[in-house]
Amino acid sequence: MNTIGKILTLTTFGESHGPAMGGVLDGMPAGVDIDLDELQCFVDRRRTGQTTGSSSRSEQDRVEVLSGIWQGKTLGTPIGFLVRNTDARSDDYEEIARCFRPNHADYTWQAKYVVRDPRGGGRASARETVARVVAGGIAIQALERLGITVQATVCRCGGTEPGDSAAVLERVMADGDTLGGIIACAVHGVPAGLGEPLFGKLHAQLAAAMMSIPSVHGFEYGDGFDMADRRGSEVLDLFEKREDGTIGTVTNHSGGIQGGISNGQEITMRIAFKPVPTLMRPVPSIDSEGNPVTLQPRGRHDVCVLQRALPIVEAMAALVILDNYLIKKTNVL
Amino acid sequence: MNTIGKILTLTTFGESHGPAMGGVLDGMPAGVDIDLDELQCFVDRRRTGQTTGSSSRSEQDRVEVLSGIWQGKTLGTPIGFLVRNTDARSDDYEEIARCFRPNHADYTWQAKYVVRDPRGGGRASARETVARVVAGGIAIQALERLGITVQATVCRCGGTEPGDSAAVLERVMADGDTLGGIIACAVHGVPAGLGEPLFGKLHAQLAAAMMSIPSVHGFEYGDGFDMADRRGSEVLDLFEKREDGTIGTVTNHSGGIQGGISNGQEITMRIAFKPVPTLMRPVPSIDSEGNPVTLQPRGRHDVCVLQRALPIVEAMAALVILDNYLIKKTNVL
Amino acid sequence: MNTIGKILTLTTFGESHGPAMGGVLDGMPAGVDIDLDELQCFVDRRRTGQTTGSSSRSEQDRVEVLSGIWQGKTLGTPIGFLVRNTDARSDDYEEIARCFRPNHADYTWQAKYVVRDPRGGGRASARETVARVVAGGIAIQALERLGITVQATVCRCGGTEPGDSAAVLERVMADGDTLGGIIACAVHGVPAGLGEPLFGKLHAQLAAAMMSIPSVHGFEYGDGFDMADRRGSEVLDLFEKREDGTIGTVTNHSGGIQGGISNGQEITMRIAFKPVPTLMRPVPSIDSEGNPVTLQPRGRHDVCVLQRALPIVEAMAALVILDNYLIKKTNVL
Amino acid sequence: MNTIGKILTLTTFGESHGPAMGGVLDGMPAGVDIDLDELQCFVDRRRTGQTTGSSSRSEQDRVEVLSGIWQGKTLGTPIGFLVRNTDARSDDYEEIARCFRPNHADYTWQAKYVVRDPRGGGRASARETVARVVAGGIAIQALERLGITVQATVCRCGGTEPGDSAAVLERVMADGDTLGGIIACAVHGVPAGLGEPLFGKLHAQLAAAMMSIPSVHGFEYGDGFDMADRRGSEVLDLFEKREDGTIGTVTNHSGGIQGGISNGQEITMRIAFKPVPTLMRPVPSIDSEGNPVTLQPRGRHDVCVLQRALPIVEAMAALVILDNYLIKKTNVL
Repeated sequence: MNTIGKILTLTTFGESHGPAMGGVLDGMPAGVDIDLDELQCFVDRRRTGQTTGSSSRSEQDRVEVLSGIWQGKTLGTPIGFLVRNTDARSDDYEEIARCFRPNHADYTWQAKYVVRDPRGGGRASARETVARVVAGGIAIQALERLGITVQATVCRCGGTEPGDSAAVLERVMADGDTLGGIIACAVHGVPAGLGEPLFGKLHAQLAAAMMSIPSVHGFEYGDGFDMADRRGSEVLDLFEKREDGTIGTVTNHSGGIQGGISNGQEITMRIAFKPVPTLMRPVPSIDSEGNPVTLQPRGRHDVCVLQRALPIVEAMAALVILDNYLIKKTNVL
Repeated sequence: MNTIGKILTLTTFGESHGPAMGGVLDGMPAGVDIDLDELQCFVDRRRTGQTTGSSSRSEQDRVEVLSGIWQGKTLGTPIGFLVRNTDARSDDYEEIARCFRPNHADYTWQAKYVVRDPRGGGRASARETVARVVAGGIAIQALERLGITVQATVCRCGGTEPGDSAAVLERVMADGDTLGGIIACAVHGVPAGLGEPLFGKLHAQLAAAMMSIPSVHGFEYGDGFDMADRRGSEVLDLFEKREDGTIGTVTNHSGGIQGGISNGQEITMRIAFKPVPTLMRPVPSIDSEGNPVTLQPRGRHDVCVLQRALPIVEAMAALVILDNYLIKKTNVL
Repeated sequence: MNTIGKILTLTTFGESHGPAMGGVLDGMPAGVDIDLDELQCFVDRRRTGQTTGSSSRSEQDRVEVLSGIWQGKTLGTPIGFLVRNTDARSDDYEEIARCFRPNHADYTWQAKYVVRDPRGGGRASARETVARVVAGGIAIQALERLGITVQATVCRCGGTEPGDSAAVLERVMADGDTLGGIIACAVHGVPAGLGEPLFGKLHAQLAAAMMSIPSVHGFEYGDGFDMADRRGSEVLDLFEKREDGTIGTVTNHSGGIQGGISNGQEITMRIAFKPVPTLMRPVPSIDSEGNPVTLQPRGRHDVCVLQRALPIVEAMAALVILDNYLIKKTNVL
Repeated sequence: MNTIGKILTLTTFGESHGPAMGGVLDGMPAGVDIDLDELQCFVDRRRTGQTTGSSSRSEQDRVEVLSGIWQGKTLGTPIGFLVRNTDARSDDYEEIARCFRPNHADYTWQAKYVVRDPRGGGRASARETVARVVAGGIAIQALERLGITVQATVCRCGGTEPGDSAAVLERVMADGDTLGGIIACAVHGVPAGLGEPLFGKLHAQLAAAMMSIPSVHGFEYGDGFDMADRRGSEVLDLFEKREDGTIGTVTNHSGGIQGGISNGQEITMRIAFKPVPTLMRPVPSIDSEGNPVTLQPRGRHDVCVLQRALPIVEAMAALVILDNYLIKKTNVL
């Protein structure tokens, strides 16, 4: 279950302090132009050390494409790729080999697999998302050729609007504490008819993709949770025939999806991130025998992941949309 | 894509006004006692006409099990089942064969498949959920044998607490309008270690399952969207060793899931439903040529679906939990 | 794992002496004309009692389509269907509830599931194939609209050419014995480019589909096993440009598939069936405690299944080809 | 569709003359001891230049494990791995960029994807199988811990018994021609109860896995095609209670599988390989415009692949058996 998608599938691998993170993007159509420099720029947006509050772990994150792209074009074959882990400092993590950090995956991972790689959280580390960004970056380039664009923005950070968050961030860092927030994501240019009507509703696929990003605790599309408090008459997206002869809706409470299928309007969603679980101050916990321990702040961690999470959100959205674009082709003979 | 699950899979079929709704539940372990009367009682909870504000369409919804259960026990073979459609009145729906109802799937379905069965919304009708409730009811019985129980409750309706919603419902019905709301769902007794760490995070699977229910616009688990406004120190679920020697957490902001894997605490989630899209008053829309039309209230529809949706939510939760219980068995040789 | 296919998936259910056999064919493109009478005729070709040597169990095998086809056209939604079991005589099978029949699935099924439905072999009965024939019959109609036809023929029966097999069959029946044989299957009109190059090679998918038919023990395509004894120069299918400008091959040792992908030539394959395992004479065996028993001839069984297997082979071929036809659509943007 | 397996899945990537071949083996249980030196030895069995008649392309094929194994044990996480391509000489292949070689995948690949990487046959090259051997080698080590062993042997080569094939091989090489043959594979120690009864019959999965190996044209298990000529009474595998109290069969015409499920006897199968398609003499063909060309012998190719194919066959068998061993765990609660 390290794979997502139906026609366009992404399988990822890699532990935080192993030799490399990587993945295989299978099912990409053949003949699509891919600009590898542009891809690297996209991946760079996820790197640390670029914004206040991000981890000081310094990874170059050079994307190494191993297959599936030749002479600047996709071959239709699986695109294997790697990003090496170069700045791993495993000695930082000896303590967590025998302790469970609160709100981390140490305890649950142990319960599931009996063994675990504790170095940097192993595969549970958010470093795993670099592989998603590589694959999503490729999908984004394919979508652009179809006139479809994806854009994620921070819409709430530490309980305030993004404009006020710098002050909050500073205060929180001083306290050795951390922040969460909300990212909004919009997809423009999606034609009507994408998404599967039952279990594969477009928003169900988007929800699963976004909820698979570390730290995400909530997902909504269109007016989302607010819609639960509205009357039906308040949120009807009435149809209109436009001057160019196309059919659209006057409002977009539905977030571009009705009955699980895109309706041609902008697709909108919001994703809630919990605050980073690793504090920069001592935290009480237990070891694997249940003895009380105090965890001292170690390792290099983000105070707030929202900026770095933007390309991850865009990547996941792009993978889902492109997959459904391909599935739609099979709906008629 | 009318299938959900990995080991335990549910495939459903059926149009609202066709001969029957049905499904195949495959991957159920062999030798599990199933009480078909108890199953029928569970399915009956979803029926209409039992609460104020529900549709007057009257279906008996008798479950007909066709395979996979013999002498009260599962055989390990696929469980095929049917629920006949007996009270379909297709003449109610002639108008929508050429018009698009706002906030319904008429337009998007047409865009996807070119043809559609307009009678009662065809397969886009919420009647489709009866098959999920049958399958989920079987999964619930299997989970009970493992000490795992699922319970959904209405926690918000029409913008108020459920206690105040009767008055609201009456006013809304008088206006020919409709309501949405929020359902909370809790799963007790889930052992630690369930869920797949990457794309198959337990909450990602639950999100996809819940978002696949018609009208759902939002999903959160644990403290959900509220968590985005908290500091890290405020939401740490500190570990404790309990008197019985087990390890638990003092609080449960995480909703029983950490790193995508259950931690043995109660799993909690909330699901937001938009208001019912069919109003009992005239609604402006367009036909398939884009000409303006006025849709008159027809058919039999719910004003509020929350009570009927409770067993659907429980069914989806049960299917996901049981599937992951089975997957966990494969984590060691 | 009662499902086959990727885009076009068939899930089947049903025990031999349960209420019904059935299935769900999902992923059929929308808008395809389906003639239900023609479908019934195709299913009738599999019925018993039509040729010498077939079982006297008399089932009407009326196909009941429950969804997915409306006004003679597919809707793009899952096609649920049933065939009732009407002539089940379960008292014939009490003995095998505690004994294991040689070359049947009684013993292995017990080892896998601990419980089993012994009536008529339960789900291991070849009666299960009726659901495949229904689904395959629908796929065949879709393929015909694309100019693709499938034809299976008996090419060997009881160690002789089909022309001589009547005499052999009579002698074998007199001895209470049974026969096997080989079926050849050809698919005409398949365009070049179908099949997935790695694990989903077109012939690998065909092999899996054919080997999933009860009693099948071997599969080959093109020159098959004979090819192993040839030199490379003897089996080269040289290319030629034809008068109509298309490219074809002079010979077809490759059976229409090269590198796992169709090359536009006729696809040819051969499928070996073992002799029917149920003899019409006493057979020594053991019961579930390992005590020796003698099984007396009971039930109604075929002496030779080849004629009845023809539509099953055609059905499986059609499902595979149509699925790959749909997959091919996703190979380009 | 570069993925095989259900619980234990292998996804491979890589073009013959790209930077590397690789794969991801997902679903391996945690805590299994893996000896990487032993793994390298297994992979070395597939290398060229070790037997008469094999290609002179010299690859070191060093396995680089990137994730999923730590401190000599599997982690339960995906095992990503690479084998670099170091001896690629792409200038050998310029001709085939515009020509189609008979019995190769050049033409069909072009028909499917429009673009292709012609260097060394791209992804259609048998070099792709190195990734299968790495993954299969890991599965073999896990199976050994369960007492299950896999062994493949050449049972026919160039139309003769393997003992006589050296003379044949020499004659064929002198003619610039090539050979095919048959490999037998046996799996010892498989417990009864593995395999899925319908579409996932154990032999159907094995057939698909073996037919996915380049050049394979036929598959049979047990007595295979010979069984088609036998009477039922001749091939009954009668049960016996053995001295140790277990139940076995006196003969094994069924090849260890009945009803698609293992019965505890040795699993036997035979796989037919066509002769290598690349001759070491001029071959007439056409270019992409249909003009006649003569292909001169180039590149480095095997005359007979059977010896090198042995570990590939063992790898595929091991992957299928281990996957079904894991699936069986889910058959009971």
